[in-house]
Amino acid sequence: METEGRRILVAVDEGDESVHALRWCLANFAAPGDTVVLLYVRPPPPTYSLLDASGYLFAEEATAAIDGYSREVAESVVQKARKLCALYSREYGRANGGMKVEVKVSVGDARSVICEMVDELGADVLVMGSHGYGLFKRALLGSVSDYCVRNANRPVLIVKS
Amino acid sequence: METEGRRILVAVDEGDESVHALRWCLANFAAPGDTVVLLYVRPPPPTYSLLDASGYLFAEEATAAIDGYSREVAESVVQKARKLCALYSREYGRANGGMKVEVKVSVGDARSVICEMVDELGADVLVMGSHGYGLFKRALLGSVSDYCVRNANRPVLIVKS
Repeated sequence: METEGRRILVAVDEGDESVHALRWCLANFAAPGDTVVLLYVRPPPPTYSLLDASGYLFAEEATAAIDGYSREVAESVVQKARKLCALYSREYGRANGGMKVEVKVSVGDARSVICEMVDELGADVLVMGSHGYGLFKRALLGSVSDYCVRNANRPVLIVKS
Repeated sequence: METEGRRILVAVDEGDESVHALRWCLANFAAPGDTVVLLYVRPPPPTYSLLDASGYLFAEEATAAIDGYSREVAESVVQKARKLCALYSREYGRANGGMKVEVKVSVGDARSVICEMVDELGADVLVMGSHGYGLFKRALLGSVSDYCVRNANRPVLIVKS
C-alpha cells in the first residue's frame, strides 16, 4: 500500500447488510489516515396528482409526513454508522491523525446518486453491501450493487453478509 | 484496520484489466504482512469425439498442443503478476516481514473455480478485474465478475480499467 489517505466511500442504508459492509470495511480495509465518507441516499419524496380525490392539502400533508419520516430514518442510519466509525477510530488512536469521517445525505435514486457521488466526492473506492432494495424492487430494477459495479468509475468492494 | 496478515486472492488472466486490478490492489489495498495469492484458471482441455473423421491420434495430438499452449499462457501470466508483486514488495521493504506471494494455477470453468478457491485457499477478500471473458462469451455466460460477486463467500473487490 503506497498511498496514504484514501477516500473510502461507504454507501449505507437501513439494512443489516450495509452495517456489516461498513464493519468489514473498518476492520479490514480502512486504515489510519484514511477518510471514510458515509453516504446515505434518501428516496425522492412521493408525488401526488393535484387532482387527487382526497384534495391537494391532504396530499401535501402526506408528502410532508413521509418526507419527515424519511429524514428520521436517514438521521438514524447515519448516527449508527458514525458510532461504528468512532468505535474503530478510537482503536487506531492518534496514529497518522486517526481516521476522518464525513457524512453526506443525498436524495434520489440510490443507484445513480451513488455512482455520481463516487466522482463528486473524489472517492478512491466504493464499499457497499450486496443488496440495497427489497426482493421485489430488486427483481424489478436489479440490485443497487450490480448497477454500481457496472457504472461507478472507481473500484467497487461488495461485502455480503 | 485491526487485522494484520490478510489473505488477498487476486484472480489473474491474460487481459489488461486483470493487470490493472492487481496493480490497484498492490498500490491501494495490500499492505506489509498480507499474503497475496495469485490465482490463474486455465480453461479445461477441449474434448474430441473418438469417432472424429480425422482420427483419434490426431485429436490426441491437437489436444496436447492446445493444452501445451494453455500451460504457456498460464506460465506467462503468472510470471508477469509475480514481477508486479515483487516490485511493490521491494517498496514495502522488510516492514512486518514484507508481503508474501503465493501462486495457484487451476483448471476448469473460471467462474466456479474462483469461487471454490476463495474457500479452499482461505481468502479474506477476492480481487478481480471487471471482465474475464471476451464480449461474445460474456454475452452468453454473463461476466466472471458478476458471477463471483453473487456466489463467492467473501467480499469481492471489482477493479475496472
